[in-house]
Amino acid sequence: MTIRKLFEPNSVAVVGASRDPQKLGNVVVKNLIEADFEGKIYPVNPKADEILGLKCYSSLEEAPKKTQLAVIVIPAERVPSVLEECHENNVTNAIIISGGFSEKGEEGKELEEKVLDTAEEMGIRILGPNCQGINNTSNGLCASWPLITKEGPLSIVTQSGTIAAALETWAQEENIGIAKTAILGNKADIDEADIIDYLADDEDTGVIGLYLEGVEKGRKFLDAARVASKEKPVVVLKGGRSERGAEAVKSHTQSFSGKYEIFKSACRQEGLIEVENVTELYNVCKGIAKIPEPEGKNTVIITSSGGSGILAVDAAEDLPVELIDLPEKSVERLEEILPQECIIDNPLDLTGSVNAEMYDEAIKILARYKDVQNLVVISGDPISGIADVIKKRYDRLPLVTVMLGMGEVGTEEERKLVDAGIPVFSDPSLAMKVVSAL
Amino acid sequence: MTIRKLFEPNSVAVVGASRDPQKLGNVVVKNLIEADFEGKIYPVNPKADEILGLKCYSSLEEAPKKTQLAVIVIPAERVPSVLEECHENNVTNAIIISGGFSEKGEEGKELEEKVLDTAEEMGIRILGPNCQGINNTSNGLCASWPLITKEGPLSIVTQSGTIAAALETWAQEENIGIAKTAILGNKADIDEADIIDYLADDEDTGVIGLYLEGVEKGRKFLDAARVASKEKPVVVLKGGRSERGAEAVKSHTQSFSGKYEIFKSACRQEGLIEVENVTELYNVCKGIAKIPEPEGKNTVIITSSGGSGILAVDAAEDLPVELIDLPEKSVERLEEILPQECIIDNPLDLTGSVNAEMYDEAIKILARYKDVQNLVVISGDPISGIADVIKKRYDRLPLVTVMLGMGEVGTEEERKLVDAGIPVFSDPSLAMKVVSAL
Repeated sequence: MTIRKLFEPNSVAVVGASRDPQKLGNVVVKNLIEADFEGKIYPVNPKADEILGLKCYSSLEEAPKKTQLAVIVIPAERVPSVLEECHENNVTNAIIISGGFSEKGEEGKELEEKVLDTAEEMGIRILGPNCQGINNTSNGLCASWPLITKEGPLSIVTQSGTIAAALETWAQEENIGIAKTAILGNKADIDEADIIDYLADDEDTGVIGLYLEGVEKGRKFLDAARVASKEKPVVVLKGGRSERGAEAVKSHTQSFSGKYEIFKSACRQEGLIEVENVTELYNVCKGIAKIPEPEGKNTVIITSSGGSGILAVDAAEDLPVELIDLPEKSVERLEEILPQECIIDNPLDLTGSVNAEMYDEAIKILARYKDVQNLVVISGDPISGIADVIKKRYDRLPLVTVMLGMGEVGTEEERKLVDAGIPVFSDPSLAMKVVSAL
Repeated sequence: MTIRKLFEPNSVAVVGASRDPQKLGNVVVKNLIEADFEGKIYPVNPKADEILGLKCYSSLEEAPKKTQLAVIVIPAERVPSVLEECHENNVTNAIIISGGFSEKGEEGKELEEKVLDTAEEMGIRILGPNCQGINNTSNGLCASWPLITKEGPLSIVTQSGTIAAALETWAQEENIGIAKTAILGNKADIDEADIIDYLADDEDTGVIGLYLEGVEKGRKFLDAARVASKEKPVVVLKGGRSERGAEAVKSHTQSFSGKYEIFKSACRQEGLIEVENVTELYNVCKGIAKIPEPEGKNTVIITSSGGSGILAVDAAEDLPVELIDLPEKSVERLEEILPQECIIDNPLDLTGSVNAEMYDEAIKILARYKDVQNLVVISGDPISGIADVIKKRYDRLPLVTVMLGMGEVGTEEERKLVDAGIPVFSDPSLAMKVVSAL
């Protein structure tokens, strides 16, 4: 059964809606309202007539029929009976935010099995329990928290609410934007593979970022990942890579994380891009989401900062990323137009006396050569106008922009790029990691 | 001869001072004024009577005698004769910002040798040429750029102006602050070892952060580093670690970076802390600068986010950092006071339903045990009041604070810590790198 209505319902009931701003049952209703959800919102709570200005229903039975999605935020033991009510209302998808299930030992595990049995019997697909919901910025379905409304090409699938919230927040602040988010929790029914399947076909999704702890159905995951990564890049961060980390995974979600080396090589085989920490996960996703796909890996570094260029080279050699020799004819041309102090090599070092026009000329020249497939443009001096140069040349070839040590000018120039939705990186080695993933 | 007057002159002449805000000769005078330099500033330029409201002298001869420091920003070929004028004025230290020396091939190299010979003859110690100057926030000697005035325990020594500017800017923005900065350039005379010697004795300096490309006098550097690292932590990022990176070093500064493996093991032997990129260099320095030194490496993670805890564990295992089992008695005590859903282990997972009081109680209990030497406190939910808890407990034992995915509450709580000068990290793995370096 499809999970489309999980992301695209025309109505959503919040069972356990609350008037208390401290409670998740309030936060979810508030976020749906503030994200301007396109469909109907039905708060359900027997003790309230109205919540946040919306009519409140005493039960799902009282709510308008054919609610397509229920968000459940009530104590664990009452979840099975609510699922039966869901069925009577024709709900086909439910998000169970409530905790108190398999993450809490034997008793919770039994309750989770009961929930799953009930859901299957009633024909309801469930996300969770013990999860942090769904966000779809294209229809305002922020059935999650924090409130994230900025639309963009990045979709996120995680087991951890915090990791998702961190990625969403950074992507909103930096004007990258989010397509869909799914925070899986205990994965009693819907798992990463189901969401990846959906996102593979989702037109709003340009890149999928995964944070996974345990993957129970390895084959199902790899099949989904293979298909998806043919359509769009899939970036994965695995939690529990170390032995002690794997034990922590078991405590966290009662799931087994398996041997990391096997996971790693399987991911590589299916074309997934692996990263090692949450900073890399975000930055690689951000780069892929917004930088045009290059023809290949051949890379040239343009810099005003010798030191930053050297650090970029070291990172390229570690990964590795192919730093090509400059095409002969480009060398001639660059020698003609650049001042004598510039070092015409890769890195192309424009030196500290650079101005924006020199970047513009250098990028223009290098962009003519097919061998030059990526340009890492490092701005390490207070170069006024550099943002306009990047903006002008941005659609012609893949530019990975690094800004650091630019002082006040940097704040202004970076703001111009962020406003234009162009990613900016603050560390040459992170930019090189992005190139390796593009 | 001492280089103390390089950082602590009672007067500074800017030779090549300019009225044009685009020129470095203007920027340096402006930054000295705006940093509120405690001594006298003498702009020198034959074509101006006044620069930025200061009386301008036509030459160093005209300027008041016993100027202790000269900052030279004039065309390269005129530098030797200015050094002679320096001598007549009794200048003992000069910063040569001007480029056009050994970084520009044979001819420049000859000129640099002439500069060095003249300086030696005249008894003047020089920084540079082709350098980005000195900053001493304690007396307002910002003979560099950008303008950095926030005082703090971090001192920076780099060959790259951009790397220094990046570190200084981040440290200013995050309220960590800077003690001294020296940007070495061509190192004709004063090199990293001379500066490290000075900083080892400098009371304002709590940690020394180095970015080095070539180290010509290996023995001198290691001797200085050994002595300094007995007094205070010394963190080093080496540029040109890879073969191609080493070639780029040669183009950048005409210096040889040597075999990296030898450098690395020598650094380790002398007690230096090595990092791999500019993000780590900054974050490790920031942590060491502000977090009290622990008794040892035994570490406990407290988290509200299972996922972030797992990523912290993976990072700890990679480094490695010793994650201890919780002391038996602390387990009993934690079981008494924490709700049932908490996972009493290392990581101590307070789970998503946590509040600030639970963090407070947990930190209080764990801080009683000598075996617990570091606490990594990860806040991954919108926990109001967490900043006050951290502030209250901060001086009792080393707390490494991570905040991510906290939504709007996070912005507010993080601001409170930054205002209090407490470092906050956004990535659990980076926090663990800090623990390994504390």
